[in-house]
Amino acid sequence: MEVAQVLHMNGGRGEKSYAENSLVQRKVISITMRIAKEAITNLYCSTFPKSLAIADLGCSSGPNTLYAVSELVKVVDEARGKLGHQSPEYQVLLNDLPGNDFNAIFKSLAGFQENLKKQMGDGFGPCFFAGVPGSFYCRPFRAKSLHFVHSSYSLMWLSRVPEGLEGNKGNIYMASTSPPSVLKAYYMQFQKDFTLFLKCRSEELVAGGRMVLTILGRRSEDPSSKECCYIWELLAVALNEMVLEGIIEEEKFDSFNIPQYTPSPFEVETQVKKEGSFTIDRLEVSQVNWNAYDNEVHQSAAFEDGGYNVARCMRAVAEPLLASHFGEAIIDEVFSRYGEIVASRMSKEKTEFVNVTVSVTRKG
Amino acid sequence: MEVAQVLHMNGGRGEKSYAENSLVQRKVISITMRIAKEAITNLYCSTFPKSLAIADLGCSSGPNTLYAVSELVKVVDEARGKLGHQSPEYQVLLNDLPGNDFNAIFKSLAGFQENLKKQMGDGFGPCFFAGVPGSFYCRPFRAKSLHFVHSSYSLMWLSRVPEGLEGNKGNIYMASTSPPSVLKAYYMQFQKDFTLFLKCRSEELVAGGRMVLTILGRRSEDPSSKECCYIWELLAVALNEMVLEGIIEEEKFDSFNIPQYTPSPFEVETQVKKEGSFTIDRLEVSQVNWNAYDNEVHQSAAFEDGGYNVARCMRAVAEPLLASHFGEAIIDEVFSRYGEIVASRMSKEKTEFVNVTVSVTRKG
Repeated sequence: MEVAQVLHMNGGRGEKSYAENSLVQRKVISITMRIAKEAITNLYCSTFPKSLAIADLGCSSGPNTLYAVSELVKVVDEARGKLGHQSPEYQVLLNDLPGNDFNAIFKSLAGFQENLKKQMGDGFGPCFFAGVPGSFYCRPFRAKSLHFVHSSYSLMWLSRVPEGLEGNKGNIYMASTSPPSVLKAYYMQFQKDFTLFLKCRSEELVAGGRMVLTILGRRSEDPSSKECCYIWELLAVALNEMVLEGIIEEEKFDSFNIPQYTPSPFEVETQVKKEGSFTIDRLEVSQVNWNAYDNEVHQSAAFEDGGYNVARCMRAVAEPLLASHFGEAIIDEVFSRYGEIVASRMSKEKTEFVNVTVSVTRKG
Repeated sequence: MEVAQVLHMNGGRGEKSYAENSLVQRKVISITMRIAKEAITNLYCSTFPKSLAIADLGCSSGPNTLYAVSELVKVVDEARGKLGHQSPEYQVLLNDLPGNDFNAIFKSLAGFQENLKKQMGDGFGPCFFAGVPGSFYCRPFRAKSLHFVHSSYSLMWLSRVPEGLEGNKGNIYMASTSPPSVLKAYYMQFQKDFTLFLKCRSEELVAGGRMVLTILGRRSEDPSSKECCYIWELLAVALNEMVLEGIIEEEKFDSFNIPQYTPSPFEVETQVKKEGSFTIDRLEVSQVNWNAYDNEVHQSAAFEDGGYNVARCMRAVAEPLLASHFGEAIIDEVFSRYGEIVASRMSKEKTEFVNVTVSVTRKG
């Protein structure tokens, strides 16, 4: 499977779209925004650039796409307002894999820009937007062309399914029952990919440029820890059921593995230091409930639908991967079972995603 | 009608898509490519830029989208090869209105880049691509960020339907029966729009930057000349028939006008001189048969289907405009009638589009 050709969040604006099922990801951006704001404010106040190029890597398509970027632009404008400076020229570069629904983003841009101008007042801008398709494990941007890179919930995706997962029978991701060779294969792929990511960004960022990355991860040093693997383990339960009922071929199931790695803060830190182009300004861990609606106003109804919400969110993220391997036909059934399984577990235990956020500066 | 929200070539890759029905537009690029190649070679050989930003305005979505750009990159690479220079870093900026099918372009990019690399050999590139949505009657690009602008068969589209076309009953474009007030309204809108276009580009292009524009136009100084108006006049015939048969309301028909202006070389020259930011290097006129297949190998069969081919091409271009005004329901019928009308006329007379190409340099 060519991950770069297959992986993308569900497009459009319909019921099953990522746009309609990405509240968890929005919460994560919101929780970690403080770190990104601090970084871009420091960047602005130490260099006062006339032009400020901000790239969002793995921008997806939906309400989250422009959320981080607009928050970043706002905080810079606030800082420059306080200092009485003229506005820098903003350049917003939205990056994702070529399967991402850029059309939907582009259609929403005119309205977004109008709102932004209204909110920010006369001294603001100009602000230019471009879509930049391509894997962040390559070089989609010109050398020394970026000042700030933001990426949230994208970097856990690997460039490929690791080699050597044949022993991972019954699982679709790292699990407590995965043999050490599988855990090692996943970790090696992460090391290779994350190092390549850092190297590419080090070429694209100007000296002193900043980068804030939030990665779906874990606190524990055990890569098969429940905190990061459980969400996929439950999907494996649903798929396993369907294998037992003869709906899915066992061979198909055994050859499916999620191209993801959920690192610990220590693993992130180690790789950044090893690669050597960046200094670490902050390294923090946070968490968010699987069910993003868990403390919303309509809690009671939402809580009942918790499993359903989580299944919809995971479907919006993983459907293209699953469909490309198993075919479209089984998808409804998979996520219907998954929803029930997730709901049952959520009623019995606390279920959270762990977020590892690292804020770094490109060495001069 | 908001032209910027409505106007776009038919998306996708299906039977009715622009991608499958844009051979005429490809021929036009091919006919006029000599002028663009000369301009970009001169630009390269007089400045030897380390970075070369090429924008294609109105890039559409289909085989033509990357055709012009790849020809331009090739000719520069040839020149730098002969001189033994290192390759500049290319930046290809693909611009069109937000309704354009950028997703389809982005999905084809990986294959395109691979081919390009293979064709060009080791010394070539890097070459970066971005999609830049937005009207070229605004400023989608940063100040002084472009070296070369190419645009083919896009600039005849106005930013809006001119005001004051109430007297244009029975027509949908300028026609021999249009009152002088209608011709004047169209011309004024063209003057306003083209001047704004030149002003915006003058801000975006570096001093010495080049621009080659090919516009669907006419040779004659009469704006209602058959050479430019006939293609729409025949569409008006089809719509008129449907009004008489009660399929389309007369009021709907009377309030529909094509937001286009097909200028003469003199009008283009006048406006460029008046705006003042550019010197004219070349101003040429060429023509292309309505039926792009007219001198293809399979001429006999193609000739019979000439009307059908032209109708499909015009549908790929004008369907979103017509559908937004008249509704989707009548579109098949309109273009079926149009195909017959066009075929009948084509068998009796020579039918050609006229192309006005202007090559200009941004004053220092």
